[in-house]
Amino acid sequence: MQVIKTSIEGLIELRPQTFKDSRGSFLETYNQPVFNALGLPAQFVQDNQSFSTKGVLRGLHFQKEPFAQGKLVRVITGKVMDIAVDLREDSPTFGKYEAFILDSEISNMAYIPEGFAHGFVALEDSIFSYKCTNVYNKACESGIIWNDPDLNIDWGISNPIVSDKDQQLASFRDLYPQSVT
Amino acid sequence: MQVIKTSIEGLIELRPQTFKDSRGSFLETYNQPVFNALGLPAQFVQDNQSFSTKGVLRGLHFQKEPFAQGKLVRVITGKVMDIAVDLREDSPTFGKYEAFILDSEISNMAYIPEGFAHGFVALEDSIFSYKCTNVYNKACESGIIWNDPDLNIDWGISNPIVSDKDQQLASFRDLYPQSVT
Ligand SMILES: Cc1cn([C@H]2C[C@H](O)[C@@H](COP(=O)(O)OP(=O)(O)O[C@H]3OC[C@@H](O)[C@H](O)[C@H]3O)O2)c(=O)[nH]c1=O
Ligand SMILES: Cc1cn([C@H]2C[C@H](O)[C@@H](COP(=O)(O)OP(=O)(O)O[C@H]3OC[C@@H](O)[C@H](O)[C@H]3O)O2)c(=O)[nH]c1=O
Repeated sequence: MQVIKTSIEGLIELRPQTFKDSRGSFLETYNQPVFNALGLPAQFVQDNQSFSTKGVLRGLHFQKEPFAQGKLVRVITGKVMDIAVDLREDSPTFGKYEAFILDSEISNMAYIPEGFAHGFVALEDSIFSYKCTNVYNKACESGIIWNDPDLNIDWGISNPIVSDKDQQLASFRDLYPQSVT
Repeated sequence: MQVIKTSIEGLIELRPQTFKDSRGSFLETYNQPVFNALGLPAQFVQDNQSFSTKGVLRGLHFQKEPFAQGKLVRVITGKVMDIAVDLREDSPTFGKYEAFILDSEISNMAYIPEGFAHGFVALEDSIFSYKCTNVYNKACESGIIWNDPDLNIDWGISNPIVSDKDQQLASFRDLYPQSVT
């Protein structure tokens, strides 16, 4: 397993090894002792899977305390641009984001710690899969509008397909008024 | 989550709920509190994913103690026939098997407890995914030949693609000489 650090503390990319043979391929997508040895959270309590047609954007989402979720994200088919925004108020990179291309051809993954907003846009029809360190809690769902002017995320697409719910999300400025001057 | 019992104690089929909308679909493929509430093992330590072309047969496999594995199996794309053989020597169904069609269209899963041999044949090109209650241990790998005459499994296919390693697996009779009269 290859571990690639990003410019944001705690946010990392992972590249597991794939074994190929005449039958097809095999890979371990999660291994608790390996995650432990890497100092990564090793307790995931929920796995989710979504299918998105090309152009669909899901996000930016997070759950509030006490249901904050760390997420181990990847794609199984297709390719997405994945975005993680640092919302840890004591972090030197608060308000900054990192973009990952998650590609089923290379089976790369990202680990997004608690305290981030997360979203992605499907660059192809894609099956997206993620493991969470805490369970779904509807009452704690929160988010930031995908095209927030302060976050200024380059999604590389102008008219994504966004759910009604996601079009109602708050602005970064509304959520963190003290942080935008 | 719909839970369907089989004729073998502890071996069950699960049908999670899928939410569909204009973007695509969403489902929880694993939820620890839900599994706990159903009395199912809720501690999985490894997730694996394999791709198999149509006609590939992988199995029959199990790991010996102390690395016996319970497996939560499903397909993400495609369709397989999945086989679980009861090898619990104190079980009334010892030596019996159950077949499941695992179909990505319905996202059904099977939970196969420790003490079973497991295998599948790909009815289409298929991505197969499974969670394990114990980690991979090469030294504890074991198995039974897929076309074992005593188990007499109906795979519904005559010339499957089988790895060299799987063609060398032992017979049921060799592993359990006292059980076959
Ligand atoms: C997140 C989640 C949702 N659901 C249900 C609620 C809805 O009926 C349906 C779809 O939910 P959405 O919130 O619209 O899902 P989505 O837009 O895909 O959001 C998810 O994908 C991006 C991720 O950033 C985020 O964690 C997660 O909220 O699934 C569940 O049953 N369990 C869940 O964990
Ligand atoms: C099972 C396993 C395998 N591997 C490696 C070893 C080989 O280089 C490669 C493929 O291993 P195989 O044993 O050939 O995999 P496969 O035939 O797909 O067997 C699996 O699929 C069917 C399942 O019944 C069984 O648990 C599992 O052994 O992956 C790992 O790195 N980790 C693992 O957990």
